[in-house]
Amino acid sequence: MAALADLTRTEARSVAPQAIAVLPIGATEQHAEHLPMGTDAMLVGAVLTAALDEVPADVPIVRTPTLPYGSSEHHLFSAAMSLRPTTLLPVLTDLLRSLVVTGFRRLMIVNGHGGNDEIMRLAVKQTALEHPVAVAAASYWALGAPDAATRVPGHAGWFETSLMLAYRPDLVRERRSVPVGDPPVFDRPPWPGLVVEKHGEWARVGGLTDPATDADPDTGRDLLSRRASALAGAIVAFDAATTEFRTEGTTA
Amino acid sequence: MAALADLTRTEARSVAPQAIAVLPIGATEQHAEHLPMGTDAMLVGAVLTAALDEVPADVPIVRTPTLPYGSSEHHLFSAAMSLRPTTLLPVLTDLLRSLVVTGFRRLMIVNGHGGNDEIMRLAVKQTALEHPVAVAAASYWALGAPDAATRVPGHAGWFETSLMLAYRPDLVRERRSVPVGDPPVFDRPPWPGLVVEKHGEWARVGGLTDPATDADPDTGRDLLSRRASALAGAIVAFDAATTEFRTEGTTA
Amino acid sequence: MAALADLTRTEARSVAPQAIAVLPIGATEQHAEHLPMGTDAMLVGAVLTAALDEVPADVPIVRTPTLPYGSSEHHLFSAAMSLRPTTLLPVLTDLLRSLVVTGFRRLMIVNGHGGNDEIMRLAVKQTALEHPVAVAAASYWALGAPDAATRVPGHAGWFETSLMLAYRPDLVRERRSVPVGDPPVFDRPPWPGLVVEKHGEWARVGGLTDPATDADPDTGRDLLSRRASALAGAIVAFDAATTEFRTEGTTA
Amino acid sequence: MAALADLTRTEARSVAPQAIAVLPIGATEQHAEHLPMGTDAMLVGAVLTAALDEVPADVPIVRTPTLPYGSSEHHLFSAAMSLRPTTLLPVLTDLLRSLVVTGFRRLMIVNGHGGNDEIMRLAVKQTALEHPVAVAAASYWALGAPDAATRVPGHAGWFETSLMLAYRPDLVRERRSVPVGDPPVFDRPPWPGLVVEKHGEWARVGGLTDPATDADPDTGRDLLSRRASALAGAIVAFDAATTEFRTEGTTA
Amino acid sequence: MAALADLTRTEARSVAPQAIAVLPIGATEQHAEHLPMGTDAMLVGAVLTAALDEVPADVPIVRTPTLPYGSSEHHLFSAAMSLRPTTLLPVLTDLLRSLVVTGFRRLMIVNGHGGNDEIMRLAVKQTALEHPVAVAAASYWALGAPDAATRVPGHAGWFETSLMLAYRPDLVRERRSVPVGDPPVFDRPPWPGLVVEKHGEWARVGGLTDPATDADPDTGRDLLSRRASALAGAIVAFDAATTEFRTEGTTA
Amino acid sequence: MAALADLTRTEARSVAPQAIAVLPIGATEQHAEHLPMGTDAMLVGAVLTAALDEVPADVPIVRTPTLPYGSSEHHLFSAAMSLRPTTLLPVLTDLLRSLVVTGFRRLMIVNGHGGNDEIMRLAVKQTALEHPVAVAAASYWALGAPDAATRVPGHAGWFETSLMLAYRPDLVRERRSVPVGDPPVFDRPPWPGLVVEKHGEWARVGGLTDPATDADPDTGRDLLSRRASALAGAIVAFDAATTEFRTEGTTA
Repeated sequence: MAALADLTRTEARSVAPQAIAVLPIGATEQHAEHLPMGTDAMLVGAVLTAALDEVPADVPIVRTPTLPYGSSEHHLFSAAMSLRPTTLLPVLTDLLRSLVVTGFRRLMIVNGHGGNDEIMRLAVKQTALEHPVAVAAASYWALGAPDAATRVPGHAGWFETSLMLAYRPDLVRERRSVPVGDPPVFDRPPWPGLVVEKHGEWARVGGLTDPATDADPDTGRDLLSRRASALAGAIVAFDAATTEFRTEGTTA
Repeated sequence: MAALADLTRTEARSVAPQAIAVLPIGATEQHAEHLPMGTDAMLVGAVLTAALDEVPADVPIVRTPTLPYGSSEHHLFSAAMSLRPTTLLPVLTDLLRSLVVTGFRRLMIVNGHGGNDEIMRLAVKQTALEHPVAVAAASYWALGAPDAATRVPGHAGWFETSLMLAYRPDLVRERRSVPVGDPPVFDRPPWPGLVVEKHGEWARVGGLTDPATDADPDTGRDLLSRRASALAGAIVAFDAATTEFRTEGTTA
Repeated sequence: MAALADLTRTEARSVAPQAIAVLPIGATEQHAEHLPMGTDAMLVGAVLTAALDEVPADVPIVRTPTLPYGSSEHHLFSAAMSLRPTTLLPVLTDLLRSLVVTGFRRLMIVNGHGGNDEIMRLAVKQTALEHPVAVAAASYWALGAPDAATRVPGHAGWFETSLMLAYRPDLVRERRSVPVGDPPVFDRPPWPGLVVEKHGEWARVGGLTDPATDADPDTGRDLLSRRASALAGAIVAFDAATTEFRTEGTTA
Repeated sequence: MAALADLTRTEARSVAPQAIAVLPIGATEQHAEHLPMGTDAMLVGAVLTAALDEVPADVPIVRTPTLPYGSSEHHLFSAAMSLRPTTLLPVLTDLLRSLVVTGFRRLMIVNGHGGNDEIMRLAVKQTALEHPVAVAAASYWALGAPDAATRVPGHAGWFETSLMLAYRPDLVRERRSVPVGDPPVFDRPPWPGLVVEKHGEWARVGGLTDPATDADPDTGRDLLSRRASALAGAIVAFDAATTEFRTEGTTA
Repeated sequence: MAALADLTRTEARSVAPQAIAVLPIGATEQHAEHLPMGTDAMLVGAVLTAALDEVPADVPIVRTPTLPYGSSEHHLFSAAMSLRPTTLLPVLTDLLRSLVVTGFRRLMIVNGHGGNDEIMRLAVKQTALEHPVAVAAASYWALGAPDAATRVPGHAGWFETSLMLAYRPDLVRERRSVPVGDPPVFDRPPWPGLVVEKHGEWARVGGLTDPATDADPDTGRDLLSRRASALAGAIVAFDAATTEFRTEGTTA
Repeated sequence: MAALADLTRTEARSVAPQAIAVLPIGATEQHAEHLPMGTDAMLVGAVLTAALDEVPADVPIVRTPTLPYGSSEHHLFSAAMSLRPTTLLPVLTDLLRSLVVTGFRRLMIVNGHGGNDEIMRLAVKQTALEHPVAVAAASYWALGAPDAATRVPGHAGWFETSLMLAYRPDLVRERRSVPVGDPPVFDRPPWPGLVVEKHGEWARVGGLTDPATDADPDTGRDLLSRRASALAGAIVAFDAATTEFRTEGTTA
């Protein structure tokens, strides 16, 4: 694994035809009363770092800097640094296009924030349509096994709080938040598969999806390890599934 | 159920505070050698019509005209009338905003085309953030029960061909297509939950995701009926979950 | 005449080099107290259908789905589903471009709503500049003979009400609207050829341009028939004037 | 009449509530072999200057600087300084909005270039919708009487050449152009009222619409005088038709 | 020197490969109580005219019409005709692109308004990236020698008032403005090189940066002459530095 | 100093009315053969960190995550991850707006990449116009004293290489680049104050502005220290100059 930020241009162009360029994206937004605003960017970085430790050396990876800002318009009721969807989409397509121009033929976004999900998918599709490349995207919590039996991950609740207790316990405040009233409708739609959004819902529930009170560091370590393994598995699978895009030459 | 196109302005404004405005969106794009290009718009209309028959009369519905065009950039390799994603997003937010201005407080998009999915979700989120309303969205094949045991729906394959054999058999050509080579990677990602797009993949497989050869009208009738019931269930559930947005007065 | 929605991709690409692709566009907006909101989309469809009956078989036509939404910002004071001008323009250029990519070389927009007029013209010009094609556009009421002696067509008044009494009498409410006060300035400018718009003018006059009281079905049938003939004439004339864009081969 | 460029801010704000702000817009583009590229901006200025001489003093006018650039994409086959339509539209709405913010309540665009026509109309409509003002627009050649009997005005042909022979004979080259082949289809559509654009049409005919050979300065002087009178008449009529937007106070 | 507005297309295309196309841009905005709103457009024109008198004949120049409108959002608190930054940027790139299409290979913007500065720089960079040309830009007051010893130029103060007293004394009102309170922070940042903007600052100081009271026509004549010489020097230097972009042939 | 990423929402909103929010922005782009692609993001972070050590505790600072991507279109000839200018501008205005919504009244961008400069200035101006806040911006190398006597800073040459030798010597490759041929014209314009851009100039000179061969770590340490002191001085000065925007209460 190499960090693009540490490579010279010639090193980057040399490894580009073989490597998978991995772009982590996060968010900076309110996470209730007990988690820091950088939670999403921190966790996507942590999971990716652990995953890359598991990826075999013959799968060449170039990790790009984490984009610490995502689309968090729904958290501006409280506190966030948010890119509007119409801003984030060209950010992602510009960055993916840049990687193509630099010589990469296999690209991957690893996402740490739910609000980025649709925009990431659109950027992946558009890039693969416009350029002769293979592009993947994964929200780290949404990848399948080896993590089948956990509860549904949410925002600032059991899942993220456990992960933060494992990764950055110094940043988890003692008094943990619990949601107010009924669970938010976007998380528990009244019919399976139905997308439902109500005005003011995030503010109504207090900015988190489920209680953080039963989070614990052991669970967090387990979740982190399993999420990392899932992501490593996905990266290896993407590599294997896209060998026809791997070129042995160097980008001139 | 009322059709917005048939209402006068005063009738529309009168029913708006109570009703759910339902906007069906489709696509016009290649569906292999045996299905017509209007398949998606036809099917979303058929499923919605059947669903509305099942919705009880005390759930007031205003059905708006079907948008027959969606985001089909990935089908332009062959034949399509496509809106770019950056065009479709303001189309949907403009239309939803119009409904809000007209007095509606509960809005729903029913979608018949996979390529619209992310854009529809973004439009729903943006509208609910900006206006004091509740907004839902459903891709008709993606709603949960009463339809649990079917195969994965695809493009121009078993699922859509069966539905068309039930709904418009006159438009299904005899010689049905089968995909070329391996299944497309976007449909069978190499890791569960991973999004993967390869340049040229739709053209490579011949423009459909799975063989249409074992489609049959009985299955189609069953699928249509179950999808309609699921959609009816979702509509009723959305109504029940958003009573606080239902106003008894008339929009002046 | 073929409906694009009914064709397979191969049929579409096969007929594309010879045919004229005709895209009808309408609107969904208030039409005073007596006409339904779908009036414009209904009427453009009706006129086009009647016109295509008159077009000789050796003028190959592919009719695309009607776009039921137009630019109706000026009707949002009451009720409309409107696309902003900056949304409608890329909608039209995207759709025209799609038809070019699909193999068509002769394109035509038939328009049913005054608010679309300028945007339609811009889309036509831009498409003909960017692609090696011929593009036409017609607002159905604005075509010349065989209809010289009628009154000026307006919005929700004598013209449209007569047409609806002929085409969909079931949708015309009994008590017909009349404008309030002086005629709207945009319709009767204080100097011939001067464009004038006043803030609030549509609301002031009550949302229609002239009294609907003297509309009658016989006039409507006559208008419909003459408008259809004019449109048929225009289509045939466009065909004859663009033979150099008609290719005999098939789009591969 | 006052020139906005010559006024101080306080003078501008003082006259704004009563005055009509008049914005002339032109173009800089090829005008065949015998007319200069600035023809449109020159002529709109000349006609407006002559018109304002005829407007009575009790119709207060503030003339803004002429925008010398318009939408001339169709002349880039040869030579032009062109704003794309999607650039010119916000230019006009930005400028009209600025005038509203500065205190004007009655605005008018006077246009010297056919390619600006639709965009000007869209800008006028949008401004009148968004602000409590009255907005007019006139293409100087398209205003009605006192000029009924002239030939159809075109581009770089009899009409404009005659005007330039009257206004700036020093800039008219001796050897005057004539169009090549059949008249351009956009000027002589194959059916009255049909808009038709063919790719490459401007280049095919040589960049002008009709022969310049029979233009003469006497006709030009007559045309200029009649066009000026028509524009003066339109301005006075706009003033009379919008007295309710005329405020006697000063914009603070 | 030739004025593009006076040239025919063939003359323009003939001189384009050798010449430098110079586009002057100004603004129309409040200049306190004593200067007219057109000050910036007037002065950039005056300086350019005087500069071109000094440029030797073997440096071929084509002067394009002055754009009289710039980005003056910060003057709308009082009076301006302003293009938003996102409008002005495509205006400039559209115009520069047009010149490239017309055959020019060396382009220059001469600017008369501070608010245009960053946008002009972006347009220059983008144009030089996209097209095989050399592009220059100069704010006339910001060029170096032969003018080293003057005071800092400002808005509507000593500098511009002196220039106007020299160039258009008839337009300078007698009672000259002085700023209110402390100098504006954008002009006198609290640390050298720091950019600082405070909300409402232009209104607070009264719309000018420094007192106009000690301006005088002799200084203005001197400033005008020195600024013109500096601009002439810059043009000649740009010509000499870009000979490899000067083509001897004619643009067909 | 607090890192926004480490704060909870309530902590962020609590400190917002008093604090200066500082947003560091960098770039990821080629830096010749000897410096890593992350140089600009690394250096702006290093200088800011050192500067904040010097800022007194009574100047409350909230440091936001570094944006590691900037506008580097001119480095895509080799290798970069670049945001187009029209992407970066809304990124910055979105982020600044978010900080305003979160309760901050004093904002500052610290920039590490020349290509961001104009866009940063536009974002600062727009934000201060639209919101009741004070906004500052500084390119760290462009601040005045305490650093007066150094050479002109460039790209990948003496200045940045010295800084990297001090800050991350492990990432500086041994064989240092020197420019090819004459210095780039954008760095040494042919006339003082003239902006000049030539197509292909960055590629011609080899991607750096001046030789890196005489860079050394001692100079780098000195530069870093002086740049940090200058930035600290600027921050303190901005604080002192904007006390009227400092509110003692807490953002609810």
